[in-house]
Amino acid sequence: MRAGFIGLGAMGAHMARNLAQQGWLGAVWNRTPATAQALAGELGVACAASPAELAATVDAVLICVSADADVLAMIDALLPGLRPGTLVIDLSTVGSATARAAARRVRERGADFLDAPVTGGVEGARNATLAIMVGGAADTLERARPLLAAMGSRVVHMGDTGMGQAAKAVNQVMCAGINQAVTEALAFGERLGLDMGKLIEVVSGGAAGNWFLDKRGPTMTQDVFRPGFKLALHHKDLKICEAMAEDLGTALPLSTATRQDYERLMAAGHGEEDISALYRLKRPAR
Amino acid sequence: MRAGFIGLGAMGAHMARNLAQQGWLGAVWNRTPATAQALAGELGVACAASPAELAATVDAVLICVSADADVLAMIDALLPGLRPGTLVIDLSTVGSATARAAARRVRERGADFLDAPVTGGVEGARNATLAIMVGGAADTLERARPLLAAMGSRVVHMGDTGMGQAAKAVNQVMCAGINQAVTEALAFGERLGLDMGKLIEVVSGGAAGNWFLDKRGPTMTQDVFRPGFKLALHHKDLKICEAMAEDLGTALPLSTATRQDYERLMAAGHGEEDISALYRLKRPAR
Repeated sequence: MRAGFIGLGAMGAHMARNLAQQGWLGAVWNRTPATAQALAGELGVACAASPAELAATVDAVLICVSADADVLAMIDALLPGLRPGTLVIDLSTVGSATARAAARRVRERGADFLDAPVTGGVEGARNATLAIMVGGAADTLERARPLLAAMGSRVVHMGDTGMGQAAKAVNQVMCAGINQAVTEALAFGERLGLDMGKLIEVVSGGAAGNWFLDKRGPTMTQDVFRPGFKLALHHKDLKICEAMAEDLGTALPLSTATRQDYERLMAAGHGEEDISALYRLKRPAR
Repeated sequence: MRAGFIGLGAMGAHMARNLAQQGWLGAVWNRTPATAQALAGELGVACAASPAELAATVDAVLICVSADADVLAMIDALLPGLRPGTLVIDLSTVGSATARAAARRVRERGADFLDAPVTGGVEGARNATLAIMVGGAADTLERARPLLAAMGSRVVHMGDTGMGQAAKAVNQVMCAGINQAVTEALAFGERLGLDMGKLIEVVSGGAAGNWFLDKRGPTMTQDVFRPGFKLALHHKDLKICEAMAEDLGTALPLSTATRQDYERLMAAGHGEEDISALYRLKRPAR
């Protein structure tokens, strides 16, 4: 099986490298051509001239872009080259409705589609320890499994098309709440005069232990907010989640509070920082 | 070194067992005598007639009770038997001011005091994998370390007397926020029709991963709220934390929201359940 990768951003470039390391990667494409050319050179794979050209030369197309419109634009751009039986795997975080629309267009060409959003941060992408939430047919997942296993350590079939994205929405809502929990607590710790390194060490080992504290606690308390996961992207995800919740007749008050905090931070020019920049609104004045 | 243990509740009984297993435990005492007699029989240690009698026969007294007033009452009750040089280690979760008051009374007798609250839940107490946050003199901690190491896997010196409790306060605030984050997200997942077992499995492996989801997610989504950590106790802790924050001129909005949710649950008779009973307020109607 020969795979092609579209979208070589912070996450995508690491995932493409891991596919290459396992011998699966044949071609890459990126909206900014220089990025694709550099990575193609590094990995010794083809740099496709277009998504359609990439699709025409591989058995599986993996997509990792930022927004719903980007996913549908990429699908439309690769369709002219897409051959029956090709796997199209969308690793982006988008709405379930977008996943279903993408799947429809792909299946009209006799190809197969999985929504397979990931979690685990840049670290997980780099170390191939992502958790991957898959929606689509079980036999399609089995064909895709060697590729997904090259990028992640936990691959779970959540159900039909769109259910991978539904699980990812839950994940993003939980991340939003944990960001509030960790930043509120650490700011309290700073005000209490605690040694923040020791505090993070001991709290990580107990019932409040979490990935975000472990990975972002040490940096946020040093005023380092390098992404990681860009705040403006999480903001976009939370808007999708809130719309999904509204359709279900429910609300996500903690996510909404986080989304509103993100808007204050974006207005102040912090949208390109890591989501842990929420700490800016909580910490004692510097 | 021969240790005595006061307070054989859900956490204390496990900690006493782990001390006994390492050969440190000489005596126990409990407010309900039958509990102490049963555990003393099980472990082959003395069942002291009073805290003072226990203190008179050991080199280290460990205390694990529920509230600030209980700690000070236990200190007063053991003082008549307390010999100079004895270690008094309070494992309870109380305010920093209570820790300082207890330390003063103990030091007046020429004995030494550590505040050493723990986190890691009943599981951590059972498996001796607690994280222990220690306040007090460094050399006192070094004397106590073999005892603490018998009960926990992470022992961190946070600073002077009271700083262990300050770290624990941060821990409790973080737990309060994580409870909101996990319950909001899982309730959203139920409404989306996701398989909750698979959802918890995949989300646990990524950037939203946390102890509480891992340990309490599978039970709360089955409407099982056996403690664990009693909701009414966390409520008590959060009131202490809010008072500490107010003294510092700050607020803990997410903790306050959780404390208020707990009050609704306590009014409905759920105070003796695990803190994950917060899910009752979030999940879809059954």
